[in-house]
Amino acid sequence: MKITGYISNLRENILIAREQGKAIVLIPTMGFLHYGHLAMVEDARKDDEDREKVYIIMSIFVNPLQFGKNEDFDRYPRNLVRDSTLAQEAGVDMLFVPSAKEMYPNGQSLTTINVTQISEILCGSKRPGHFKGVATVVSKLFNIVLPDLAYFGQKDYQQFVVISQVVKDLNIPVQLIAFPTVREHDGLAMSSRNSYLSSEERQQAPILYSSLQEGAVLIAENETNADVIKTKIIDRISKESKGKIEYVEVRNAHNLEQIEKIEGAVVISLAVQFGSTRLIDNIILEV
Amino acid sequence: MKITGYISNLRENILIAREQGKAIVLIPTMGFLHYGHLAMVEDARKDDEDREKVYIIMSIFVNPLQFGKNEDFDRYPRNLVRDSTLAQEAGVDMLFVPSAKEMYPNGQSLTTINVTQISEILCGSKRPGHFKGVATVVSKLFNIVLPDLAYFGQKDYQQFVVISQVVKDLNIPVQLIAFPTVREHDGLAMSSRNSYLSSEERQQAPILYSSLQEGAVLIAENETNADVIKTKIIDRISKESKGKIEYVEVRNAHNLEQIEKIEGAVVISLAVQFGSTRLIDNIILEV
Repeated sequence: MKITGYISNLRENILIAREQGKAIVLIPTMGFLHYGHLAMVEDARKDDEDREKVYIIMSIFVNPLQFGKNEDFDRYPRNLVRDSTLAQEAGVDMLFVPSAKEMYPNGQSLTTINVTQISEILCGSKRPGHFKGVATVVSKLFNIVLPDLAYFGQKDYQQFVVISQVVKDLNIPVQLIAFPTVREHDGLAMSSRNSYLSSEERQQAPILYSSLQEGAVLIAENETNADVIKTKIIDRISKESKGKIEYVEVRNAHNLEQIEKIEGAVVISLAVQFGSTRLIDNIILEV
Repeated sequence: MKITGYISNLRENILIAREQGKAIVLIPTMGFLHYGHLAMVEDARKDDEDREKVYIIMSIFVNPLQFGKNEDFDRYPRNLVRDSTLAQEAGVDMLFVPSAKEMYPNGQSLTTINVTQISEILCGSKRPGHFKGVATVVSKLFNIVLPDLAYFGQKDYQQFVVISQVVKDLNIPVQLIAFPTVREHDGLAMSSRNSYLSSEERQQAPILYSSLQEGAVLIAENETNADVIKTKIIDRISKESKGKIEYVEVRNAHNLEQIEKIEGAVVISLAVQFGSTRLIDNIILEV
């Protein structure tokens, strides 16, 4: 595995891989890798153990543009030594770890990409500017790498919908994959931010997924009222944990529009604060 | 020359050209071609009469997203039959004439690209949203074509600066050319909008370039006060025509910041309304 912090060097290596006829795969991350990240590498590598078909680039960049002023940019966990070992073992070909200066040479970007409507709801209403930062940096990565395929974790489902919209609206020639959320043994969605949790919070956090699952069971049993599902999940989290609910919502999984009646592709999505740690999770159902 | 209205068909043809080792050149236009457009084609074709090295794509698209509500979108001149003849004669390989539906399948784009500061001044202050529309559609064209080289007319100098900023900030792998403004025999900058002018307006319109030239002469004679130049140009246009001045400004040619003292790369830029026709022009000087 190669490591570089420079766009020019990354592009040179991609050019060679492309000339060798390899498909270019991008896995953008903020680092502090967990098995949710590594499972994407394994998936991209699965029919290509000889590394003849696919060239896998993982980026690690904690993007200042997507953090609000009072958010956790400074304390976001970082461990490049550990990350590079894990990435190499998983089968990454090139690890791209740019500095903020390499990504934003003037300390800022006059240019930003905004997606109306779907950026302003759910996590976006609590984190104004967040998805603008995400859309902008991911578009930069797409332009730098020109990947054939890019992986994103389903845990950040709204992020995936926003990026899908950017790709569609701006005609970006890339195929996106929403990779299923990888979970701990007790159901907690893997996340770099889980490292913030106290042991008590960590014990309570699996309530998020188990309440989502309970919602899914109710829907399987023919409950079609979105409010009933929502209320059930809110009640359960409130009763069984100290988590402070930011939102629990049931929406159309394609365009994130609010729904009253559950039908078609549906996402149940939530954000809950445990102490100073904000956790998100979701479940997608085809009804 | 081939003509298509479809992105998929365009991309197929580009793929073949790329496999033949040709450089891909994009010349985005709004059609109603004049020699200012055709001179860019000739420039791109100049060392490649056998059409072995360069594949020239001209797009013709009157982009609704960059027109304000009370602007001239509906009456903007269109003549595809004439345009396609001219484009073919000039040496275009592929004419891309998408419908609004092909470019905006949902009738709108949730995603937009915004460039702060340089989009809000000069023409941008009179045309809010204009450069957002330009940046968005040009980015779409870049993603569709993935050109090695793209031409833009210097007459729309602010547009060029905005697009340059987008390319830099978003790491778009394209080289931009600001092609020198082509002028009528009396100095009027060629523009599709000149067709709106009455014969009296047409007679008066060359005052724009001659006053810009007068400004350039003053600067060559060591005038360094931007206000003096500006006042001189405003006075002359006001006295010698019925043109209604929207702005005359002297700015840094790289970042369009206002300057008081004339030094370095300077652009003198103006917008003047003749009847219902808004004309722009500029001159760039290295002092």
